Amino acid sequence: MQLLTVGSVAFDAIETPFGKSDKIVGGAGTYISLAASFFNRNQALVSVVGEDFPTDVLDGMVKRGIDIRGIQIPEGGKTFFWAGKYHNDMNSRDTLVTELNVLGTFDPVVPMEFRNAPFLMLGNLSPDVQRKVVEQMEVRPKLIAMDTMNFWMDIALDELHKTLKLVDLLIVNDEEARQLTGEYALKTAAKRIMDLGPRLVIIKKGEHGALLFSTDEVFYAPALPLEEVFDPTGAGDTFAGGLMGYLSTQEDVTFDSLKKAVIAGSALASFCVEKFGTQRLEELTKIELDERIKEFYTLSQFELA
Amino acid sequence: MQLLTVGSVAFDAIETPFGKSDKIVGGAGTYISLAASFFNRNQALVSVVGEDFPTDVLDGMVKRGIDIRGIQIPEGGKTFFWAGKYHNDMNSRDTLVTELNVLGTFDPVVPMEFRNAPFLMLGNLSPDVQRKVVEQMEVRPKLIAMDTMNFWMDIALDELHKTLKLVDLLIVNDEEARQLTGEYALKTAAKRIMDLGPRLVIIKKGEHGALLFSTDEVFYAPALPLEEVFDPTGAGDTFAGGLMGYLSTQEDVTFDSLKKAVIAGSALASFCVEKFGTQRLEELTKIELDERIKEFYTLSQFELA
Repeated sequence: MQLLTVGSVAFDAIETPFGKSDKIVGGAGTYISLAASFFNRNQALVSVVGEDFPTDVLDGMVKRGIDIRGIQIPEGGKTFFWAGKYHNDMNSRDTLVTELNVLGTFDPVVPMEFRNAPFLMLGNLSPDVQRKVVEQMEVRPKLIAMDTMNFWMDIALDELHKTLKLVDLLIVNDEEARQLTGEYALKTAAKRIMDLGPRLVIIKKGEHGALLFSTDEVFYAPALPLEEVFDPTGAGDTFAGGLMGYLSTQEDVTFDSLKKAVIAGSALASFCVEKFGTQRLEELTKIELDERIKEFYTLSQFELA
Repeated sequence: MQLLTVGSVAFDAIETPFGKSDKIVGGAGTYISLAASFFNRNQALVSVVGEDFPTDVLDGMVKRGIDIRGIQIPEGGKTFFWAGKYHNDMNSRDTLVTELNVLGTFDPVVPMEFRNAPFLMLGNLSPDVQRKVVEQMEVRPKLIAMDTMNFWMDIALDELHKTLKLVDLLIVNDEEARQLTGEYALKTAAKRIMDLGPRLVIIKKGEHGALLFSTDEVFYAPALPLEEVFDPTGAGDTFAGGLMGYLSTQEDVTFDSLKKAVIAGSALASFCVEKFGTQRLEELTKIELDERIKEFYTLSQFELA
């Protein structure tokens, strides 16, 4: 087991200016594992779904090399459901429905065989659930990464601070980095986040790319200028999944391997937004992905004069 | 004469959250020529100032290899004056005073010896003044670049369209590109701008870098993550000046040389914002500039996996 992920597996109903989806499969854990599977077929997912969750989707995960023995299915439970509507600029959205269902009482149990995973990805969940997973690890992973969101800063900041102390890499967007630190300049915000625990910080800037910070290095990953974003749902989780999937195949976590991992995540995210939900990722080939990564290279590489 | 610039030479009074400047020397032509002088000391400036303009500033230009015989000094005239105040986020500003003075009746005359310049930079001015300069050229320059702003789109769109037909490269910011084309996606906006005349488009995104588009290639230049922006005045003109200064020393205008030129402009702009007005550029050394260009390289370069 190289990569262990904890994250939600859910039903989403999405409305964008381009159309409306049925109730489709989503959730951070779904996107992360799916994206990671392009690089690593030796991973596991810890999550919870209801009895209403389709078996064939779980079978599909197994076929992608995702061990699902850590996905609980409480008797009589219903799967987490989220419905949202994006505004015209695609940068903001309204939540129409949140039904926590089985996620509301989720008490993660990491199966024994996953407790020595060298890479651990904590998808966006309440910070105490994230911490419970870290505490079950028997060997300290080489790298623990986590995502979070404004919501937890609003209602569980103390818990969030405790969890932050345990992780190596925080992945947030610009707005979240600013809220967490009270700093507007992202370089300063990244420093303040490092004061809270993580030695690595990634700040996602959507159509403006992403910044990777270590204590003494910075990397600016570009975003591909797109003519159309069809559905942004899951793009952030796909980024994290691609990043951790790539990284978990590398011998060492160096700044160079982190840079490549950020590009891998960015490339996968650029596919994710092309169709509703996980659809584009489901049909994506490794050849298309490698081509896209080369596009990122061409897009941003130059020679010194 | 390798690079000819037309642009305002002005007095500015600037207020930022960090302080307030006296009446200092500014103007697009000033910043462009000053920035270009780090690469090219064989350039000329066409502009207009009043009799109140300090002779030592003009002498300083000459020492930097800027031919000022195209700067008119009408008898009894007063120099263009602008006063502005930046908001806390530094991304927006209020204009407090605009006194056009000699700029209001500026009728540019390109001295005979500049009319075969291979590189022509049209700083932000009314589009008909920009066009008058193009029409005086005896040999079609290798590259004509122009800047413009929302103001001209509001009050002189037809004139602007006429001038756009004559140029190779338009340099605008994201907001201006969107207003000019009615397109939100910058890739689409760049295509629409090419339909209007220019075969090359640069869209500046401030702290998010800049995009360079040709008909079939794209380059994403990063911006250095800064902890503090002291005064953004002139950053856009400095970018254009560095770009054209570098480019005008190159044998051919290729996409590769354009990429390096965008980085040169970005590096110079990153210095410009460190102090009030032209101060940081005045004291900047070529060694510091080369170091900064290397920082941009380190910031954005990665290897393919």
